[in-house]
Amino acid sequence: MDKQGGNEIVYGRVPVRELLRSARQVDCIWTQKGLEGASLGGLIALAKERGVPAKEADAKKLEDISGGANHQGVAALIPAADYAELEDIFVRAGESPPLIVIADKVEDPHNLGAIIRVAEAAGAHGLIIPKRRSAGLSYTVAKTSAGAAMHLPVVRVSNLPAVMEDLKKRGVWLYGADMAGSPYDKTSFTGPAALVVGSEGEGLSRLVREKCDMLVSLPMRGKVESLNVSVAAGILLYEMARQRTVDN
Amino acid sequence: MDKQGGNEIVYGRVPVRELLRSARQVDCIWTQKGLEGASLGGLIALAKERGVPAKEADAKKLEDISGGANHQGVAALIPAADYAELEDIFVRAGESPPLIVIADKVEDPHNLGAIIRVAEAAGAHGLIIPKRRSAGLSYTVAKTSAGAAMHLPVVRVSNLPAVMEDLKKRGVWLYGADMAGSPYDKTSFTGPAALVVGSEGEGLSRLVREKCDMLVSLPMRGKVESLNVSVAAGILLYEMARQRTVDN
Repeated sequence: MDKQGGNEIVYGRVPVRELLRSARQVDCIWTQKGLEGASLGGLIALAKERGVPAKEADAKKLEDISGGANHQGVAALIPAADYAELEDIFVRAGESPPLIVIADKVEDPHNLGAIIRVAEAAGAHGLIIPKRRSAGLSYTVAKTSAGAAMHLPVVRVSNLPAVMEDLKKRGVWLYGADMAGSPYDKTSFTGPAALVVGSEGEGLSRLVREKCDMLVSLPMRGKVESLNVSVAAGILLYEMARQRTVDN
Repeated sequence: MDKQGGNEIVYGRVPVRELLRSARQVDCIWTQKGLEGASLGGLIALAKERGVPAKEADAKKLEDISGGANHQGVAALIPAADYAELEDIFVRAGESPPLIVIADKVEDPHNLGAIIRVAEAAGAHGLIIPKRRSAGLSYTVAKTSAGAAMHLPVVRVSNLPAVMEDLKKRGVWLYGADMAGSPYDKTSFTGPAALVVGSEGEGLSRLVREKCDMLVSLPMRGKVESLNVSVAAGILLYEMARQRTVDN
């Protein structure tokens, strides 16, 4: 095991196999392009079985990841904090209406870390991210979150739209942050709620957007057309939390 | 003139002298340590006369700034956008109660850019920053602001506490963002108002904090103890703007 840029990396065929067989959480594995046969194929199958994303990398990238060591075509990343289960979020909410954040395809680790930081501060009960096309709980994310990644349950799911359906069945109302939405300050957020935010460039993906019960927007009173995703999430989450504490 | 990292740099004694004598705005000049005599002394005096900060740099830094060119011990930075005058903010506000942001010692260009972005989006009429110990309108700041630096008046002042006094005389109420403040959501922000935010590590400096009419805080409902300064500014500014548009 080695630390590259603060990340815990395991490399080599036997160490990665043993890691995948252990109870430890694994963020992802990288296998070298063109080397999928024999033992690497077995590792990819093992990763799939455990629900760990397997990514391809060229020899140069694998060498960078493993710090120049003899990686034998494979490396694995251990997350900076353990992922939680969906149930953990509801347990944490307890008697309160759950307040959840869903980050769809936020690939920039600084943005994901900043979202975790403000979500935890706003009193959200958990964050849900997809396994594909999203930053994971890397050390950069944990650092940018100012430690919040150690406190907020972060759940990683293979099929985000299916989990959104599941949340709806549990009575959670899904609010998508979208420029085309209703004004956020005319919206009631007092029940069980999940705020869904998308990537900074592209916004919500079509399928995720269609699963939302309602779209909400922040007014842009100047000339710029959008906010940083963590700033937008912060404004919306603090408004959601504010409404819950107002004496009616 | 040259571009280093997207910044417009002027170097050499005669070019910098002519720049300081021109009508063009200058962000700052750097002079080489130990070379203050003769012509460099004259340039420093000229910069002071124009209110342009003169900083010292060692030979290595000056070489980096001027891209290895023959800098003759001096270089100057041209801002990515022109600085405005305090009066411009009031003109922009027009009949509306002014909404101003004061960023005290925000030295990280990404944080300053993010503050400009959310201030412009929230409908603030301008930003005030000190000349010393603050990022300026560099190209990094302009880029991080997503273009907002081209639209929002940014005023740079030598004596921030004195300008705060001036704002008070004009009827502007000064709200300092501070952990020890009153809950932001129990505070009325509907009159002429300036939000004062400090650096992420240190918060408001003592003198600036004492000049505030009132301190306001954001609840930290989890375990993390603070928010990113641009996220905190965004939440507070959107609440200030929200209160102004609520039908009472």
